Amino acid sequence: MTDINKKNASTIISASWIFTSNSEGQLLSDYSIVIENNKIIDLVHQSKVFDEYDADEIYQLTDHILIPGLINTHTHAAMSLFKGFADDLPLQDWLNNYIWPAEKTFVNSSFVKDGSILALSEMIKAGVTTFNDMYFYPDATAEASIELGIRSNIGLVVLDFPTNYAADPEDYLLKGFEFRDKWRNEDLITTSIAPHAPYSVSDEAFGLINTYSEELGINIHIHLHETQWEIDDSVKRYGITPVQRLNNLGIISPSLIAAHCVHLNDQDMAILAKNKVSIVHNPSSNMKLGSGIADVAKMLKQNLNVSLGTDSSASNNRLDIMEEIRLAALLLKGKTKSPELLSATQAIKMATINGAKALGLDSIIGSIEKDKIADLVAIDLNTIENQPIYNPLSTLVYSSSKSDVSYVWINGKIKLKEKKLVNLDEEKIIHMAKIWQKKLKKM
Amino acid sequence: MTDINKKNASTIISASWIFTSNSEGQLLSDYSIVIENNKIIDLVHQSKVFDEYDADEIYQLTDHILIPGLINTHTHAAMSLFKGFADDLPLQDWLNNYIWPAEKTFVNSSFVKDGSILALSEMIKAGVTTFNDMYFYPDATAEASIELGIRSNIGLVVLDFPTNYAADPEDYLLKGFEFRDKWRNEDLITTSIAPHAPYSVSDEAFGLINTYSEELGINIHIHLHETQWEIDDSVKRYGITPVQRLNNLGIISPSLIAAHCVHLNDQDMAILAKNKVSIVHNPSSNMKLGSGIADVAKMLKQNLNVSLGTDSSASNNRLDIMEEIRLAALLLKGKTKSPELLSATQAIKMATINGAKALGLDSIIGSIEKDKIADLVAIDLNTIENQPIYNPLSTLVYSSSKSDVSYVWINGKIKLKEKKLVNLDEEKIIHMAKIWQKKLKKM
Repeated sequence: MTDINKKNASTIISASWIFTSNSEGQLLSDYSIVIENNKIIDLVHQSKVFDEYDADEIYQLTDHILIPGLINTHTHAAMSLFKGFADDLPLQDWLNNYIWPAEKTFVNSSFVKDGSILALSEMIKAGVTTFNDMYFYPDATAEASIELGIRSNIGLVVLDFPTNYAADPEDYLLKGFEFRDKWRNEDLITTSIAPHAPYSVSDEAFGLINTYSEELGINIHIHLHETQWEIDDSVKRYGITPVQRLNNLGIISPSLIAAHCVHLNDQDMAILAKNKVSIVHNPSSNMKLGSGIADVAKMLKQNLNVSLGTDSSASNNRLDIMEEIRLAALLLKGKTKSPELLSATQAIKMATINGAKALGLDSIIGSIEKDKIADLVAIDLNTIENQPIYNPLSTLVYSSSKSDVSYVWINGKIKLKEKKLVNLDEEKIIHMAKIWQKKLKKM
Repeated sequence: MTDINKKNASTIISASWIFTSNSEGQLLSDYSIVIENNKIIDLVHQSKVFDEYDADEIYQLTDHILIPGLINTHTHAAMSLFKGFADDLPLQDWLNNYIWPAEKTFVNSSFVKDGSILALSEMIKAGVTTFNDMYFYPDATAEASIELGIRSNIGLVVLDFPTNYAADPEDYLLKGFEFRDKWRNEDLITTSIAPHAPYSVSDEAFGLINTYSEELGINIHIHLHETQWEIDDSVKRYGITPVQRLNNLGIISPSLIAAHCVHLNDQDMAILAKNKVSIVHNPSSNMKLGSGIADVAKMLKQNLNVSLGTDSSASNNRLDIMEEIRLAALLLKGKTKSPELLSATQAIKMATINGAKALGLDSIIGSIEKDKIADLVAIDLNTIENQPIYNPLSTLVYSSSKSDVSYVWINGKIKLKEKKLVNLDEEKIIHMAKIWQKKLKKM
């Protein structure tokens, strides 16, 4: 029976703890989130929520912590079909003899669709609700992300050299703008222009990219200062570092999302800080490829916005942002020998509100606040691995793991329920991955 | 009906892959392990195993990889009740204001028993079949390990200063030898003498320890060169590094298990290598406490035996050796900028056969070979996170995680079945941890 004094809502989720990731880093105990359609309309103490609201769906999550949906700010989703394809190899051997030949032979629209479905399933299961992608055949990635109902920022790749996907910078851009026009009315999809890296894009192409980025008001997503080789190569060819070159070309601005930044001298760091660039830290990938360990402590001192990325399954083998949160905290403490640096709270913010800021989406996602969109993750802390709990944020960062993610909502809709993907056949996805494995292993 | 031409066995386990961790690092496809009582009596191809053997229990584990039980070569199990009790603090603040006062107030036999049950449950669920411990009230740890049926090497702690447990070095040793006499007939329990660290044990006590270790033929387990402070303090007090001091005292020998070794100069490294010391690498703990990142590449170049440890839940918050395997591989590649160093195979060996060597147990555990004891772990690779599989060892190290551990056998007995602890009530263990949390949070 409907109580006429109560407001009706779509969903009410109550949890023992809610980490809001708002500007005060507030942690609420025994609160409820009230959702109407895709929006958070209220945050109310559990003891009062049902005095004020009725809802169609009600979740009572004792011993769970609710957090904003995790944001994977740098990945190449479709490459999940290359997961474990080649490991433990020197970078040039890995690229020249494995990844590039495999891409040339196999990458087409169908590969990107299937690889993206595999990757996005893994991400949702691990609490990722938004991913920032860069790969060929973006239509296929967009189709997969709409099918699975995950939020995406799709990078429109630009390269100097031809691939299966496009012929030259103009062709890449043309295809990119066709993509943008086609998907612009989808709530869950935004776009960036994604020049691959300083060493694979000419000054002329950067000029075009800069013009379009400003005209269309969209971000630029790039690999930047990932390896020492990239910097040495730039100094050899241009006499300056990639950051300095891109600064001269007008690319260094608040709308730049710079993935990696493993090696930055003081001058480079100052240029990025002055221009309020967003940096994506990819701890696992940078270690696995032998790129090095980024100096995140220095970035934070310069007030740079640092978010987290998994990079692709080819160089990380896990699309697990919870693992990157923990690693980011551990690595910074280990590198600086200062255990008090990068608290649990700061580390979670990197994977939530900082990711939203990088993508220019912090007015709608990245924190649990009234009027923001309901991208939410519930993590079950009632396990042997997580108990006892003295500080739920410590438990979240240092003890819990992706296997504790039990519920995920994106855009107000439930996508993971009791650890199972909603409306998706996991066995079928595994089977599809096995079919690709049979094709690829013949290489 | 029994076929009289067939030999009878206790258990037959068939799996898609078996990583033996033998000296050739052999990986078998579609093989079966035949177990009689607690021993591996044969390894036979799946197609032939039932022509030769009948068994009481049969496991057909498709898409699983079987590996030797993981060995956690450095931990303080009981401290799992301090998991998340104090994080993100400078080392001296953490010790002086949190850990030591809490130990003084709460640590007794009952705390150690309950904390050990919590820790050992977590370890078994994560595929750990042997742990190398160092803590007060070893009887309580031994009781817990026998109750849970896990293999342990219990360190008999020695300290210069008094604790709730003992008064002075002689008292610690006396209590230790009483422990050793009481448990010496237990198959699953071995012992070490465990002087806490160079800075907390006097030359005189080390003299006693050395004598007893040689007389009784047992290992010594110690924290060594964990922090730069420890080394500076030793140089100040003794004019030499802890390694050099312990070398003068006769402690540096093949029976030494040295945990951490984060900071070693060339001379220290040479002393450890010459004396074939076993080093325990604790990547998570060393980073979380801000100790630093050990130079494992250099240790391996010197042919040092390096195994892996989680350290305690107070400084890691996860007793997850699979995570330490992955971290060890990633950190070494990241630190050296050489992605080809520390292959997946080498990383798994650290957590299996190298751990067994450190404990002097490599004739009975650490690899899957005929006549060795059946300490085994099965990991389910038929998941979205692990597919596709090109190289099962890459999948194991870089993609799989503790939540994929589905079966564990220790000493031939099944301890984890379909991810559930056998004959243990997980809810009851969680409840017990919550009761301790209520007591401790009042501090």
